[in-house]
Amino acid sequence: MTLFIRRLNASAEDFHQQLDSLLAFEAALDADLERRVQDIIQAVRQQGDHAVLEFTRRFDQCEAASMAELERPKARLEQALNRISPAEREALTQAAQRIRSYHENQKQLSWRYVDDDGSLFGQQVTALDRVGLYVPGGKASYPSSVLMNAIPAKVAGVAELIMVVPTPRGEHNELVFAAAALAGVDRVFCIGGAQAIAALAYGTQSIPKVDKITGPGNSYVASAKRQVFGQVGIDMIAGPSEILVICDGQTDPNWIAMDLLSQAEHDEDAQAILLCPDAGFLNQVEDSLKRLLPTLSRAAIAKTSLEARGALIKVQDLSQACALANRIAPEHLELSLENPEQWLPHIRHAGAIFLGRYTAEALGDYIAGPNHVLPTSGTARFSSPLGVYDFQKRSSIIQCSPTAASQLGKLASLLARGESLTAHARSAEYRII
Amino acid sequence: MTLFIRRLNASAEDFHQQLDSLLAFEAALDADLERRVQDIIQAVRQQGDHAVLEFTRRFDQCEAASMAELERPKARLEQALNRISPAEREALTQAAQRIRSYHENQKQLSWRYVDDDGSLFGQQVTALDRVGLYVPGGKASYPSSVLMNAIPAKVAGVAELIMVVPTPRGEHNELVFAAAALAGVDRVFCIGGAQAIAALAYGTQSIPKVDKITGPGNSYVASAKRQVFGQVGIDMIAGPSEILVICDGQTDPNWIAMDLLSQAEHDEDAQAILLCPDAGFLNQVEDSLKRLLPTLSRAAIAKTSLEARGALIKVQDLSQACALANRIAPEHLELSLENPEQWLPHIRHAGAIFLGRYTAEALGDYIAGPNHVLPTSGTARFSSPLGVYDFQKRSSIIQCSPTAASQLGKLASLLARGESLTAHARSAEYRII
Repeated sequence: MTLFIRRLNASAEDFHQQLDSLLAFEAALDADLERRVQDIIQAVRQQGDHAVLEFTRRFDQCEAASMAELERPKARLEQALNRISPAEREALTQAAQRIRSYHENQKQLSWRYVDDDGSLFGQQVTALDRVGLYVPGGKASYPSSVLMNAIPAKVAGVAELIMVVPTPRGEHNELVFAAAALAGVDRVFCIGGAQAIAALAYGTQSIPKVDKITGPGNSYVASAKRQVFGQVGIDMIAGPSEILVICDGQTDPNWIAMDLLSQAEHDEDAQAILLCPDAGFLNQVEDSLKRLLPTLSRAAIAKTSLEARGALIKVQDLSQACALANRIAPEHLELSLENPEQWLPHIRHAGAIFLGRYTAEALGDYIAGPNHVLPTSGTARFSSPLGVYDFQKRSSIIQCSPTAASQLGKLASLLARGESLTAHARSAEYRII
Repeated sequence: MTLFIRRLNASAEDFHQQLDSLLAFEAALDADLERRVQDIIQAVRQQGDHAVLEFTRRFDQCEAASMAELERPKARLEQALNRISPAEREALTQAAQRIRSYHENQKQLSWRYVDDDGSLFGQQVTALDRVGLYVPGGKASYPSSVLMNAIPAKVAGVAELIMVVPTPRGEHNELVFAAAALAGVDRVFCIGGAQAIAALAYGTQSIPKVDKITGPGNSYVASAKRQVFGQVGIDMIAGPSEILVICDGQTDPNWIAMDLLSQAEHDEDAQAILLCPDAGFLNQVEDSLKRLLPTLSRAAIAKTSLEARGALIKVQDLSQACALANRIAPEHLELSLENPEQWLPHIRHAGAIFLGRYTAEALGDYIAGPNHVLPTSGTARFSSPLGVYDFQKRSSIIQCSPTAASQLGKLASLLARGESLTAHARSAEYRII
């Protein structure tokens, strides 16, 4: 198996143009798909369960006669924990514990203070009432994704967590059910696609309406999430997965090559980039990539990804590497360096930062504790990993003392009249003593 | 001026249907407008300044020969502070101070811990680099909106804040420039509409590309924000403003009526609803509304709003009122009650909660301190007031010790092989000692 991976030099005159075109990725918007999804949502809004059943029969080749047949009770999820191997159960249990313990640190608390005028100010933090979790079915059905989405919601205090997972031709994944049991998912419906998103957003006779929907899905699911946004909250629509590795040239080149490949094997649009000041090391990693690639079960996917979107980039020094990392704002950033802590303050934009030669990105995907749902396509410039805070929201609290209401009323009245809003002004003026 | 305001009884059999139809509001999507906005964005992406100038000349009837002519330097903003009246300057200055001091409490801090295995976990919190603030021009040009959007960004530590405000036919508002000076806005361009949003999202020769855009605007601006979302972050697209008042019947009915009117005068789609267990008090408020309405400068707008979307609702008791508040999840909630604190824990969904008879909602619009950009249309079920946290983002931090990498590597390998991702598994396995 041959491999042609892009080699760039950050000192080249046209480097920034090359980098721009390397990073450019726009998901094509398919107007036809958008319309089909719109029709599905409309049908579910109007006909509820009937439409969901009909679409599920058609798209998932499933023969359910009623929605009740598509629900999996908690006892069934618990059963899954006994059907998987003891080693798998132990690994999932440890992962759940570690994810829970990391996320406990993210919980936001209410706060308040009384000022000198005797007025009370604050924010009351509350959990969302009910959340929907989309889990893809078939081969892309990942138990790790169940844990990463469900546990932060439960840590936040979400009272009811509804999971949907399609079971095309009746196929299901015991590990997904087991993960749902461990994560404390409350109800599971075996439905998927745009019809599942519509059912969660608007509710049907059987499926309760939720306040927010999270979790990955195919292009139908992504389009449906975009269309119901506003009616419910949604998480970010994820782009292809990415890794950026900054290495000083002292890590085993096989390790770095496999870290790049672990990203490239995700899908053909995934992006794996290495920055290193040592050209000789880049050669070694290239050799490792060529040697290791054919030994992978998903070699064809990884090859396409590396050739289309990968790069080995020679940088002048580690400062330039950090500047480029901020420019790229990668989903995953490995600092495979001698003193990674020293460089951390220079990194402003990244979804997750893996420090040191031992912290393989793959550990973060499954077991380390931090969330694996991360901002992609440079959106780490303005967004954050999925977290407990995504399942909490805030209400401002204001209680003015009579004295404060009088004093502030005068100022508010002046400003309101400046904006020609006289009812605002007079509502404030009533409280002037 | 006559006024017909809806009277409902929460004990009526069909009350929940009546409430549903009262709350129903869907902003019509205009496919033609969407396409025109798409064309504007494309033109700005391709032609930069040239397109922005061209659109500004056409839509704002402005004769600028270059983008430089459309920029207002900091000195010009400072000048505005001297052009407004001393009373206005004082009111804006106090508002800015109070908003800043409230928002300081929202700042999120980085955190980290080292576990028993010697591994480091945490989250690094950083500010966005550069933010764009849209301010509507003409009559809807609100200095309070400049303060409410700009100050949280500056408290977060945003290095560069770019404001855009259209000046149709050269008209501008000194108060808006003065508010920009007080809030610490870094650069101001007199452009607006979809072209201003596109310029901020993609950058032009003169206008720097930002990471997030906040601020209200007309339907072109809202559509443009939706279309550039993903390229940059955006705040929520606001629906019509709403107030829900819960009163025990002991507040002056004129006060309550004016509080309802202060919301109704915003626009014809605004919603003002009163819940009270005392039918006699509802009659008094209705009388006050009828008497006060004709005395308002925006009486026609307030009348349309109250008749189309307002309601005076008789509830059984205050518990039922709180349950309805959670069902409605209003933008603004007044608890005009004797012991408002007692009822606060029962309120789960509201943008801002105003406690006690003295805390008119209008105080919160201008001067109290908390933000006036709040979730509308029931989105308080899953979202929060605009705050410092909207201008900060988080990066996960993970550093595994060699021992931890070895132990976790075994578990990650097992889970990765369960998901058929062998490069993930082998990347973890390399670190097993």
